[in-house]
Amino acid sequence: MDLKRSPLALHFPDMPDIDGVTLRTVNAGYKDWERADLTFVELCDGTTAAGVFTQSACPSSEVELGRQHIKQGAARALVVNAGNANAFTGYRGREAVEQIMAQIAEGIGCAPETVFVSSTGVIGVPLPKDAAKAGVTAALTAPPCSWEDAAKAISTTDTFAKGATATAIVQGKTISISAIIKGSGMIAPDMATMLGYIFTDAAVDPAFLQQLLNDSNGKTFSCITVDSDTSTSDTVLAFATGKAGNAPLVSFDSEGADAFAAAFHDVCRQLAQLVVRDGEGAQKLIAITVTGADSDESARKIGLSIANSPLVKTAVAGEDANWGRVVMAVGKAGEPADRDTLSIGFGGHWAARNGQPVDDFDEAPLARHLKGQEITIEVDIGLSTGRATVWTCDLTNGYIAINADYRS
Amino acid sequence: MDLKRSPLALHFPDMPDIDGVTLRTVNAGYKDWERADLTFVELCDGTTAAGVFTQSACPSSEVELGRQHIKQGAARALVVNAGNANAFTGYRGREAVEQIMAQIAEGIGCAPETVFVSSTGVIGVPLPKDAAKAGVTAALTAPPCSWEDAAKAISTTDTFAKGATATAIVQGKTISISAIIKGSGMIAPDMATMLGYIFTDAAVDPAFLQQLLNDSNGKTFSCITVDSDTSTSDTVLAFATGKAGNAPLVSFDSEGADAFAAAFHDVCRQLAQLVVRDGEGAQKLIAITVTGADSDESARKIGLSIANSPLVKTAVAGEDANWGRVVMAVGKAGEPADRDTLSIGFGGHWAARNGQPVDDFDEAPLARHLKGQEITIEVDIGLSTGRATVWTCDLTNGYIAINADYRS
Repeated sequence: MDLKRSPLALHFPDMPDIDGVTLRTVNAGYKDWERADLTFVELCDGTTAAGVFTQSACPSSEVELGRQHIKQGAARALVVNAGNANAFTGYRGREAVEQIMAQIAEGIGCAPETVFVSSTGVIGVPLPKDAAKAGVTAALTAPPCSWEDAAKAISTTDTFAKGATATAIVQGKTISISAIIKGSGMIAPDMATMLGYIFTDAAVDPAFLQQLLNDSNGKTFSCITVDSDTSTSDTVLAFATGKAGNAPLVSFDSEGADAFAAAFHDVCRQLAQLVVRDGEGAQKLIAITVTGADSDESARKIGLSIANSPLVKTAVAGEDANWGRVVMAVGKAGEPADRDTLSIGFGGHWAARNGQPVDDFDEAPLARHLKGQEITIEVDIGLSTGRATVWTCDLTNGYIAINADYRS
Repeated sequence: MDLKRSPLALHFPDMPDIDGVTLRTVNAGYKDWERADLTFVELCDGTTAAGVFTQSACPSSEVELGRQHIKQGAARALVVNAGNANAFTGYRGREAVEQIMAQIAEGIGCAPETVFVSSTGVIGVPLPKDAAKAGVTAALTAPPCSWEDAAKAISTTDTFAKGATATAIVQGKTISISAIIKGSGMIAPDMATMLGYIFTDAAVDPAFLQQLLNDSNGKTFSCITVDSDTSTSDTVLAFATGKAGNAPLVSFDSEGADAFAAAFHDVCRQLAQLVVRDGEGAQKLIAITVTGADSDESARKIGLSIANSPLVKTAVAGEDANWGRVVMAVGKAGEPADRDTLSIGFGGHWAARNGQPVDDFDEAPLARHLKGQEITIEVDIGLSTGRATVWTCDLTNGYIAINADYRS
C-alpha cells in the first residue's frame, strides 16, 4: 500500500544537536525492507529522564519495564524498534526487551535499568531476538546520524518525518530542546502507536522534568485524538543531559525554570499537532476550543467528546458547519452543560448562541472557513471559567481505505 | 439522497393488534413531502406507562416534559412528529410541544400530562405550530392504520420499517406485545434519534413496568452502538392497556410475571438489533460477547469499547480477523483486564489465548466467518464471571458517504 504524504504535512525543521546525545540508526531487518528500523540514542552520563506511558490495561513489555525504570530518573540509552510492536507476545516478548537492555548496558557500560526500549509495528509476533542482537551490535559502532534520519527510522506508516525544536535562555545560557515523534499511521494488523522523544541540554532535576512532562502531557498529547483508539505502546520520554551547564532546575522557583517550561511545553504542543496532521486520511486539522466549562478538565472532556464524534468529523470532512452535531457531542460528554447557555461557532463566527440559532444567521463566512485546511470550532458552555483546546482531524474515506480496504 | 435498503434489513413481522391501542397517521407537512409524518396513538383509559430517555445534557423539550410526566405512570396518547426534532429551539420549541399536548387532551378528554410527544428530524428549527395544529386536528378523526404504516410514519432516514412482537401466557390468558422503533439513519444536519414504543394488552403496574424497562434497557438498547454518538431525543416508552384482563402484574412475585418479563425482554432485544441492522453504511451485524470480566457492567463497558472502536469496525468491514485491534480496545476500556489472561476469538474460533497468539493458528475458519453477514467476536477477560453481549455494525465508506459527502 502506497501511503500518500498527508496534505497537512509540515517540512522537517532545522534542529540543533543536543550536547550529550548521539543518534545512530541501522537496519535490523525486523521486516523485509532496506530502511533503517533500529534507532539507538546514546546519552551522556548524568542524563536525567522522565516519561509518560499508555494507560492501556494491556501494555507491551517495553511499557511495563519503562514504567518501572523511569522511577529512578536516569537514562543512558534509548532503543526504538520499528516494524514489530512486540505487544501481546508474553514472556518471549519480554525476553527480547531484556536482551536488548543487557546488550546495550554491556556495550556502553551502564546499568540495564538506564536503557529504555520502545517497539512499534505488527503485534502478536515476538520481536525476533536474533535480528535484535545483530542490530544492536551494528548500532553500537554505527556512525552518528541526523534528527531527520532518526525521525524516519522510528516511523512505521507515518507519511512524513516529524520533529520539533525550541530554545530558551536559562541563567544567561541558551539551552536547546530537540524532539522527534512518530504518529498514528497504521496498517492492519498494526496499531497506532505514538512514540515521542524529547532531548535537552539543560540540567533538570528528574522529579521536576517529570512534573513538566505531566503538565504538558495533560494539555498536549492528552488533548489530541485521531479516532479515539489508544495503543498498547504509547510512550513519551524526556531526557536532559545537563551539558548546557546551568544550575539544575529543581522547581518553578529555580532561576530560568519558567522560560524552560515554556519552551518545553511549546515542543510538546508542536509534537502533538504533528501527530494529528498525519492522522489517517486527514484532510483538515481541527482545533476545538471549549470555554465556560465547569473546570479545565471538564472542558477537555467535552472537547474530546466533540473531537471523537464521527458525526462531527464527517461533517467537517463534508465542509458542513453542522452545529447540531456539536450540540449532540456536548450533550453526550457526561459533563455539566446547560442547553440554554450553550453557544457554538466555527472559524470565530457564532452559529448558535444561548441555546438557539443566531437570528439572521449568515452561513457564508462559516462556509468559507470550512473550505480551508485548518478549522476551528468554538464552544462556550456558559457555566463557569473552565477552558481547553483539543486537536483532531476530519474523518474521510481515506481512513476507511487505510483500515478496511487494505488487508494484511 | 437516495438511501438504499440496508442489506441487513428484516421483513416487517405480522404483528397482532393490541386491544386499547388505536394507531392513526397523517401528513402534517413538517417537510415538503407527501408521506405521513405525524403519528397519533390513542390509548384506552387506565393505560399504564414507563419510559427511558436520553442521558444527553442537552435534551429536547419533548424529553424534558416526557421525563416529568412519566413519573405519574399513566398515558392516554402518544404523538410522534417526523421531519423536525425540535431540539435546541428554546422556548418556541417548548410552546409547540405544550400546544400539541393541550390539543390532544381537549380532543380525547384527558389530562395534558398523559400525552407524550416525540419529535425527530432536523434540529435548531422550532416545530411549526401551525402545521402541528392542523396535523393534530386531522389525526383526531383519521381512520386507524396498521403497525407498518405507523412504523413508516415515525421514521426519517431509516431504510426499512422496524417492528417486533411476542406473546406470553399470563394467568392462563394470552397477552400480546407489539412494538415499533425508528433507528439511527440520519442526514445532515439531522441527528440520529432512536424512538421506540412498546404496547401490550397486559395489565402491569407502572412501577413494575418501569422496572422491566430499566432492566431490559440495560441489556438491549444500552448495549447497541452505531457510531458512539448519542442523540438529544432518544426515547423508549412502554404502554400497558390492561385489556387482556389479567390481575395486574406488580412484581416478579405476581403470577405470570416471569413469562411477561421474558416476552418483554425479547421484544426489546429485537428492537435494539433492528436499529443496528439499519446503522448507516452497515454491511455486517457484529455481536460482541465478553465473558470473564470483573462484573456484568464491566463486561458491558469493555464490549462497548470494542464496539465503538473505529479500528475494530473497519477491520470487520475489511473481513480481517484483526484480534490485535480487539486487544487495543480492551486495553483502553478503563476496566480491569490482564494481558496475560486475555483470550480473543471470531466466530467461535480462538485467535489468541491467555495473552499470546494460538499455537499453530489456522486462520481459514476465521476468514470464512468474517466473509459472512453476521459476525461474532468472543472476548474472555479471564478474571471473574461478569458477562455481556453488545451489538454494533461495521464502519464502511457508506457511513462517510451519508454523513460527509451529502450536504444539507
